Amino acid sequence: MRLCRIADAGRIGYASWEDGGFAELADPFAPVLRRTGTRIPAGAARLLAPVEPRTVVGMAHNTGAADRERPPAAFLKAARTVVGPGDAVRLADDGGTPVAEGELALVIGRETSGVRASQLLSCVLGVTVANDVTDRRAQRDDPLWTSAKSRHTFTPVGPWIDTDLEAADLEITVAVNGAEASRASTAGLARDPGEILAYLAALMPLGPGDVILTGAPGADAALRPGDSVTVRIEGLGEIGNPVQAWPRQEAAA
Amino acid sequence: MRLCRIADAGRIGYASWEDGGFAELADPFAPVLRRTGTRIPAGAARLLAPVEPRTVVGMAHNTGAADRERPPAAFLKAARTVVGPGDAVRLADDGGTPVAEGELALVIGRETSGVRASQLLSCVLGVTVANDVTDRRAQRDDPLWTSAKSRHTFTPVGPWIDTDLEAADLEITVAVNGAEASRASTAGLARDPGEILAYLAALMPLGPGDVILTGAPGADAALRPGDSVTVRIEGLGEIGNPVQAWPRQEAAA
Repeated sequence: MRLCRIADAGRIGYASWEDGGFAELADPFAPVLRRTGTRIPAGAARLLAPVEPRTVVGMAHNTGAADRERPPAAFLKAARTVVGPGDAVRLADDGGTPVAEGELALVIGRETSGVRASQLLSCVLGVTVANDVTDRRAQRDDPLWTSAKSRHTFTPVGPWIDTDLEAADLEITVAVNGAEASRASTAGLARDPGEILAYLAALMPLGPGDVILTGAPGADAALRPGDSVTVRIEGLGEIGNPVQAWPRQEAAA
Repeated sequence: MRLCRIADAGRIGYASWEDGGFAELADPFAPVLRRTGTRIPAGAARLLAPVEPRTVVGMAHNTGAADRERPPAAFLKAARTVVGPGDAVRLADDGGTPVAEGELALVIGRETSGVRASQLLSCVLGVTVANDVTDRRAQRDDPLWTSAKSRHTFTPVGPWIDTDLEAADLEITVAVNGAEASRASTAGLARDPGEILAYLAALMPLGPGDVILTGAPGADAALRPGDSVTVRIEGLGEIGNPVQAWPRQEAAA
């Protein structure tokens, strides 16, 4: 099933994608999904980021066998940096080096606290596509990564949550202006979703709507204002975003 | 005015503290506060953390004149680590070095995006008390600080939001088991709330309920299971929390 968050004539709500249209849902995090009975035609609604998380947490150095030898490490992204399909990624004109990172994201469906490690995957509602936009220069200058990862608009997530997909070996491609910039597979991650979730749930509380970025197995894709960037995951879907310059007067503090 | 979030016979809501009792509020973030007319006696309700933030962001190295010479830097805490007055701070039995840091916290009342730097302080709803619990050993081992700052229960916040307090020179004391462990003033911060907000709002989106930890001007207070820890800010109030051991079987991933 594909769970969506949609805007329809000013109303924002959750829906499942069924028979070429949206079937409105009362609560996407309920143990049993209940449809309200309202159907919205595909053309009448706009897809938003499928969740409004309180926690967005990503795995650092999680690519390839060598990273398995290092202890796991995680970073947070400010939750309000999440944007949806078609929303602009905005870059400050400050000499930074922004790149796109295409990643599989896990969406949490229920609280992980008190759940045994072996049962944690049952707390995952499904998976979606994320672009973990990162400023590489700021990442070198700021050991805490906050100014590299948590900038306005730096976390496109979407287009929907797939609740049935097997995540072990999915191809992730990143394209800039239609040209492929990176191609890799979730099989290239050092730690798989079960291991990631075991690490993170022991560390911090996770709950409905929270997003876990599993790591970028592929290469960086450099971004400049005027670009369009798309992250696509095989069998799941894609999220595309225009890249724009941040208005200088707003960025200035 | 003191804005509170309270639990009253299973219901959770916002209230202002007036005439020795709680006056229920429709929405603490509304431009004009509206009372619902329901009054709750002081003894009938329990104070909770005054907000459920989406962003908890703290200032790194923000103490004393020397830190003014360094560029500002911020770290995120996982938003669900926030706990309220009387809630347990739980420590894993993993050889870490947990400490309390007493801090003044700013609570955001409205979105900062698009607001001029000179007007940003108008986005602050008020101030509250925070205990930025930190594992110093994990902080040395994890350059991203995530495993030091974002552990379960590591962010006591409360007891209420004071909307009128002048924050420039407030005494902050931390007591462990009733004995003073640290005494300092917000005057000892390297950057003041206006400068902090200008830096952070330029970097990331902030919105209603978000919490900014302004930095700990005082000394560390070591914590052990069985302790009780209290952070008090002059003219504002205090937040006290018991310190407990994390059940080993839950912490094990």
